[in-house]
Amino acid sequence: MELLKARIIKDGIVKKGNVLKVDSFLNHQMDVRLLDEMGKEFKRRFAGVQITKILTVEASGIAIACAAAKYFDVPVVFAKKSKSINIDGDTYVAVVESFTHKNINNIIVSKRFINEDDKVLIIDDFLANGCALRGLISIVKDAGAQICGIGIAIEKGFQCGGKEIREMGYQLESLAIVNSMNDETGEILFG
Amino acid sequence: MELLKARIIKDGIVKKGNVLKVDSFLNHQMDVRLLDEMGKEFKRRFAGVQITKILTVEASGIAIACAAAKYFDVPVVFAKKSKSINIDGDTYVAVVESFTHKNINNIIVSKRFINEDDKVLIIDDFLANGCALRGLISIVKDAGAQICGIGIAIEKGFQCGGKEIREMGYQLESLAIVNSMNDETGEILFG
Repeated sequence: MELLKARIIKDGIVKKGNVLKVDSFLNHQMDVRLLDEMGKEFKRRFAGVQITKILTVEASGIAIACAAAKYFDVPVVFAKKSKSINIDGDTYVAVVESFTHKNINNIIVSKRFINEDDKVLIIDDFLANGCALRGLISIVKDAGAQICGIGIAIEKGFQCGGKEIREMGYQLESLAIVNSMNDETGEILFG
Repeated sequence: MELLKARIIKDGIVKKGNVLKVDSFLNHQMDVRLLDEMGKEFKRRFAGVQITKILTVEASGIAIACAAAKYFDVPVVFAKKSKSINIDGDTYVAVVESFTHKNINNIIVSKRFINEDDKVLIIDDFLANGCALRGLISIVKDAGAQICGIGIAIEKGFQCGGKEIREMGYQLESLAIVNSMNDETGEILFG
């Protein structure tokens, strides 16, 4: 998606350790016009695919998932990262290691919100090693629901997640795939 | 806002300890059509108020803030609840006690995303004792920006937050104010 790539070139910041900061427009401050265009693009890429629900994970997936949900006209469910007293005991749980935060979380979804009739589109902001995505996939499988597609804003093509998830047979659509980035020059190359 | 009140009556669940669960449409599963109507209603209530940025706090404020931002045509900034390695050291910080989660968090906003020229609309899903809101207000003040309004989805009118924040002189608009609720009968009464 050229609009997103251009914005990454303009405002993305490459940091040591293969960290790409897009917090000025995607995951701390959010450009809602850009998000809307991204939602529209996901609808175009999954045109004709029947979807009943969009699943994402808090926090930075929520805005993108909601932007897409408008075009699919379905509810969004976001997996929560810590057990709240507001959640019933009756939950699907997956363990996820965060590349960015260097920690391990449970992600949980109430069983009331995904069931075996659901056709799920999974959406997230980043795909690197694929840990978060595998957690979301495992939750949809536990629910007996069908995974009808996976939409990612920015994939780090030089990490293994995208390749592995595609080999599992899913339609994985990334709006921008970064093939390399250089924290000394700031250069970002797309696939 | 009648649409929201009707939905709370229909799908809200009253739990012991004055907990109102709205997780089937607002903060775990999200009805994006309802969110859009809520965004429109915030624009109506703050008609003519100049806004340059919407500030909320992760996670459940994000979807509502983004829905509103579409109508105000401004960026959203969400305060983060834990220090990420993706955040620069240069942040505004406030301490917030959570009514729901019974814990204390720092909420942080990068100094790059609010400045003294900003006219800020603060948006959040719940207002009970007002701790989260006071944290967000303190961050806007630290930035030297102006608070031009506060928009809340559901205010618990029987707790002190709303009264105290209004006494501070802010235009606080809550789309639904719950005056009482009964966890035995499930009855919810609005102001």
